Amino acid sequence: MSTNPSFLLNKINDVSFENRPVPEIKDPHYVKIQVKKTGICGSDVHYYTHGAIGQFVVKKPMVLGHESAGVIVEVGEAVTTLKVGDRVAMEPGVPSRYSDEYKSGHYNLCPHMAFAATPPYDGTLCRYYLLPEDFCVKLPDHVSLEEGALAEPLSVGVHVSKQASVVPGDVAVVFGAGPVGLLIASCALAFGATKVVAVDLFQSKLDLAKEIGITHTFIPTKGDTPQQSAQKIWELLGEKPTVAVDASGAEPSIQTAIQVLKEGGRFVQAGMGRDNITFPIADFCSKELTAKGCFRYGFGDYKLAVEFIASGKVPAAKLITHRFKFKEAEEAFKTVMSGKAVKVIIDGPEDDE
Amino acid sequence: MSTNPSFLLNKINDVSFENRPVPEIKDPHYVKIQVKKTGICGSDVHYYTHGAIGQFVVKKPMVLGHESAGVIVEVGEAVTTLKVGDRVAMEPGVPSRYSDEYKSGHYNLCPHMAFAATPPYDGTLCRYYLLPEDFCVKLPDHVSLEEGALAEPLSVGVHVSKQASVVPGDVAVVFGAGPVGLLIASCALAFGATKVVAVDLFQSKLDLAKEIGITHTFIPTKGDTPQQSAQKIWELLGEKPTVAVDASGAEPSIQTAIQVLKEGGRFVQAGMGRDNITFPIADFCSKELTAKGCFRYGFGDYKLAVEFIASGKVPAAKLITHRFKFKEAEEAFKTVMSGKAVKVIIDGPEDDE
Amino acid sequence: MSTNPSFLLNKINDVSFENRPVPEIKDPHYVKIQVKKTGICGSDVHYYTHGAIGQFVVKKPMVLGHESAGVIVEVGEAVTTLKVGDRVAMEPGVPSRYSDEYKSGHYNLCPHMAFAATPPYDGTLCRYYLLPEDFCVKLPDHVSLEEGALAEPLSVGVHVSKQASVVPGDVAVVFGAGPVGLLIASCALAFGATKVVAVDLFQSKLDLAKEIGITHTFIPTKGDTPQQSAQKIWELLGEKPTVAVDASGAEPSIQTAIQVLKEGGRFVQAGMGRDNITFPIADFCSKELTAKGCFRYGFGDYKLAVEFIASGKVPAAKLITHRFKFKEAEEAFKTVMSGKAVKVIIDGPEDDE
Amino acid sequence: MSTNPSFLLNKINDVSFENRPVPEIKDPHYVKIQVKKTGICGSDVHYYTHGAIGQFVVKKPMVLGHESAGVIVEVGEAVTTLKVGDRVAMEPGVPSRYSDEYKSGHYNLCPHMAFAATPPYDGTLCRYYLLPEDFCVKLPDHVSLEEGALAEPLSVGVHVSKQASVVPGDVAVVFGAGPVGLLIASCALAFGATKVVAVDLFQSKLDLAKEIGITHTFIPTKGDTPQQSAQKIWELLGEKPTVAVDASGAEPSIQTAIQVLKEGGRFVQAGMGRDNITFPIADFCSKELTAKGCFRYGFGDYKLAVEFIASGKVPAAKLITHRFKFKEAEEAFKTVMSGKAVKVIIDGPEDDE
Repeated sequence: MSTNPSFLLNKINDVSFENRPVPEIKDPHYVKIQVKKTGICGSDVHYYTHGAIGQFVVKKPMVLGHESAGVIVEVGEAVTTLKVGDRVAMEPGVPSRYSDEYKSGHYNLCPHMAFAATPPYDGTLCRYYLLPEDFCVKLPDHVSLEEGALAEPLSVGVHVSKQASVVPGDVAVVFGAGPVGLLIASCALAFGATKVVAVDLFQSKLDLAKEIGITHTFIPTKGDTPQQSAQKIWELLGEKPTVAVDASGAEPSIQTAIQVLKEGGRFVQAGMGRDNITFPIADFCSKELTAKGCFRYGFGDYKLAVEFIASGKVPAAKLITHRFKFKEAEEAFKTVMSGKAVKVIIDGPEDDE
Repeated sequence: MSTNPSFLLNKINDVSFENRPVPEIKDPHYVKIQVKKTGICGSDVHYYTHGAIGQFVVKKPMVLGHESAGVIVEVGEAVTTLKVGDRVAMEPGVPSRYSDEYKSGHYNLCPHMAFAATPPYDGTLCRYYLLPEDFCVKLPDHVSLEEGALAEPLSVGVHVSKQASVVPGDVAVVFGAGPVGLLIASCALAFGATKVVAVDLFQSKLDLAKEIGITHTFIPTKGDTPQQSAQKIWELLGEKPTVAVDASGAEPSIQTAIQVLKEGGRFVQAGMGRDNITFPIADFCSKELTAKGCFRYGFGDYKLAVEFIASGKVPAAKLITHRFKFKEAEEAFKTVMSGKAVKVIIDGPEDDE
Repeated sequence: MSTNPSFLLNKINDVSFENRPVPEIKDPHYVKIQVKKTGICGSDVHYYTHGAIGQFVVKKPMVLGHESAGVIVEVGEAVTTLKVGDRVAMEPGVPSRYSDEYKSGHYNLCPHMAFAATPPYDGTLCRYYLLPEDFCVKLPDHVSLEEGALAEPLSVGVHVSKQASVVPGDVAVVFGAGPVGLLIASCALAFGATKVVAVDLFQSKLDLAKEIGITHTFIPTKGDTPQQSAQKIWELLGEKPTVAVDASGAEPSIQTAIQVLKEGGRFVQAGMGRDNITFPIADFCSKELTAKGCFRYGFGDYKLAVEFIASGKVPAAKLITHRFKFKEAEEAFKTVMSGKAVKVIIDGPEDDE
Repeated sequence: MSTNPSFLLNKINDVSFENRPVPEIKDPHYVKIQVKKTGICGSDVHYYTHGAIGQFVVKKPMVLGHESAGVIVEVGEAVTTLKVGDRVAMEPGVPSRYSDEYKSGHYNLCPHMAFAATPPYDGTLCRYYLLPEDFCVKLPDHVSLEEGALAEPLSVGVHVSKQASVVPGDVAVVFGAGPVGLLIASCALAFGATKVVAVDLFQSKLDLAKEIGITHTFIPTKGDTPQQSAQKIWELLGEKPTVAVDASGAEPSIQTAIQVLKEGGRFVQAGMGRDNITFPIADFCSKELTAKGCFRYGFGDYKLAVEFIASGKVPAAKLITHRFKFKEAEEAFKTVMSGKAVKVIIDGPEDDE
């Protein structure tokens, strides 16, 4: 297997398979991983269909994919914690070891981050990928490789729960029940929230929420004001929530989140939607709320995501609805675009590819 | 002095003096204070000219004023820390002793708060006012009564600094250089900020900022975008600020605050302006900022405000531009409305009033 | 039932039953509770056998008991959240509503605390007991009254977990597997600890630990140094713990706790043993550990304890090994003193008592 | 100046000058510094007289010194923030960029730390020393190089204040008024403490405390119990302190610190004395105190130390009592050993050395 088949986005709506050079370990702290499973994320699809996310623009062909797990096939000389054959979840963003952000415990904010499938960096939909050993999390034997691939979106859920400081006794509302919203909701329970409401416009998504153990679900009524939606959520819960998370990016969700929160409550913006929204700043102020942004994930989040999967606290695998071979990658993306799928997994290239 | 002359707002733009009954101590934890100095706050003026602030509507004549200091003239049976003759700063909002908010250390959020000059509660522009002993802060001998009155707006500055978690090494930007904005800026320095930029459209306000020791000032250029203003503030500071506070209530200030902050920075909304504003949620999110509301002040803030005045860390008295007799109260309000004043102080009723 | 049978400690090892006056509600925020179940705590026994704990000395006959649940039989005029017939867990310590400690969110440290069965305050081993409504936690229908009584020791476990800031991913060691130690260990899991080691000298206690779901157990080898014990715990866990709690009061436990902790780890002293111990301050310092005391419980702890019982996260009822009638109270205490019991519950007085 | 004169500790009480090879930059992130000023620390003296500190044993000749400032004479290829001629304070400990401690924002706890003059690493009493650029803090023009050398012990003071979470309004007691104790006390004021008591047995040290602005001083009476000393400190302050720091390593100091603290107060152990001490664990527990170790300094501490010197908040230079030429290094150490000095500074080698 001296080849490195890769799935590339050339430009908007133009993808192809290409045989890229097999990467070589130059930094002794790195390992080479044979990628086995990769989930498709909304950002992959967004690059596919729009060619850019914000300031990140695809200017040359880029390998897609960043939610991956695989098997170690080679280790650098300085590697001490991993060996060939180890199965690992692959954290796809490597920051500068010298930045103040990294040094102060917030490497997700490092301006020099090299993140898979974020231009100009190639992603993981290929056979071989290099990572520093400390950005690989070894999978316990009973955790599958496709569960390992889910550690990526689950890490977002972990980071959101940390940003929201979810503690036992909290009551949370999560707006948006797509894969990330569901994983956030499940994480909030794992962090000890007593009740979690998943909010979405589609009953099918909320059915899945119930299936993974989310305690409450809510469909907003068309035409209701944020105040009216908040009132209904209070009635559903029998109390006011202390935590609200927006994983929808929708303006009405954010406005309802501010209305629904208890005095002193915490809001986290997890999904990116529009650049600007109309924000109820007076209510935010008089209830002395806290709002936090959430960007990717940081120290310890990936490890905790794997632990949540391993312990069964977050039944992430239930989100997988479709599986494809590597050579079916384009069909896999089309399936996500169709809106029929929750989480789609693509195998790594087969040996003869 | 068995009378209680009071300055009342009857309805919009209709004020009068009235002799109210002298209040009697019923709760043994209360003291009776002869009010000596009262500052005029923007909210007093807003009730005067609009008859309401948000949900708080003046429905019957209400005594104005809530920034006061005075002298103890009588103490309840259970009072142990104050005696007749003590000079005190008067914290004007008394919460329920039974609310969860009070019990958990956040009494400013108590829904049962009785706050001076917030309907239906009378204010302090009168001769005698009752307070629980623990809502009075004894003034050191060298702190004047009018400085004691300034403890109220300064407590807002203290609370903002706590909400922003200002620590030594922080670099702060404060939008709005009215009395509250200036006190916030001065508090940020007292909390250890290395540099503080006061931002306002008027040079005269920024001159006063310089006079009280604010390290930097900035006038936004008309027509500049938030990004352009942020760029200019970075150049002024030589670095990105870690803390931004809006004390202006103006939409462009809030937008600039979000742009100007360093990754991971903290924003506090201190002034109330419009109910809703256009908020750059995507930038807020990707920089992983924290935003907090700020509502009045809480445990320990009043005491710290008096300490900041006593130690000279916050030269609050420099903000006083005008002084009036009690019987000139209407003129005092008109002076504030004219925009010519920074902080206006009204004496308590004289003995023969 | 116009009588109030009570179980009193007259002096060391001298107890008796007495019919005390039925207490009357004077403060309108209070409720009258018919006590139904009371657990025996180590401190009850200590007063019984020693007549004092530290500065608290039994100088006149005192009703014993403070771990209770009962049924509301009368409510004061200001009571809004409870009604006659409600089943409640009874929080036994009522602080001053005026103390700084209460006001700042730390009422357990209030110097004016009136705590049941702590001299000079009577306890709950009687028919009728008065409490403010906000110190009663209503029990869900499926939670039994004897589980409600267990909310008291479980609140200690909750408070310890908060003092230790236990978060998901933590690995904890709890020294001492008596009732409080076991509840602390179970709470640590409820707060998200991945692994918890219960440490005790007796296998029977550790068997119970396993039964309630504690993930690991450890019996120290006689004669091992703290360093040797720490080494063995590291091997058991495969990693260094981030949290250690002493619920034994034994010097070797505390010393082992300091040795076993990971750099930057957190230690909480939960059990009171000797006044002074030999403490490895140099190792504490060079690992930059944090140590915290833990005294009773504070805001929100009792409510969370009831929630942990209601959700099954803490299977507290499994700790109950013995049950006695009210008239058998002395026998109940003797059973605890014998060391054969884990948790002993005494019924409230029967109607004809 | 192609030579590198160095001052070495060969073994206990055996020092010599030696010409070491001039070090060469190999890592492109490094700079070469010509050392200009070096302070003598207690740990340097301890190695000199004992040959070891704890597990760190001098097994081969080691260059002494780690409190230094100098001038950049060469920069590596990747260096972007410094240039030849820049004057810098030199942070003497370089951690592994890959350790969890570094990555999580606590690099001072990194087990792979290479710390100057801690075996087996050479110190800074030489002409040329290499450091990564991000472990150099550029000095403002008005800060002298010998003040830059004082950034090292001052960083300890900064770190202690952070560990103690000193905020405005705190009242602090610092035990031990040697150089580190005095810098800690001064830092506590810079962090906003309202009052700080310096405690020492020697009046001369307390005179210096007064000179640098410490608000209170206290000499314990021989034979007083910790309770008696605490009582006297309460009387001196008129209130109970919220923060206590031990910079003496003496058992009675630590015991008094626990007694003197207010309920909920914070203790930091800053000085290393004996390995084990008798600790009043019951009082620690019932007051719900927090104790923290403090080991060197971490992210941002060195930068803040330089800022405190630059702003005059900490008048560190007042601690310098003696200055020596490089060739007088042995005499400099003898002066420290004599107990007559507070802070001793040694020049870097002169050009013709």
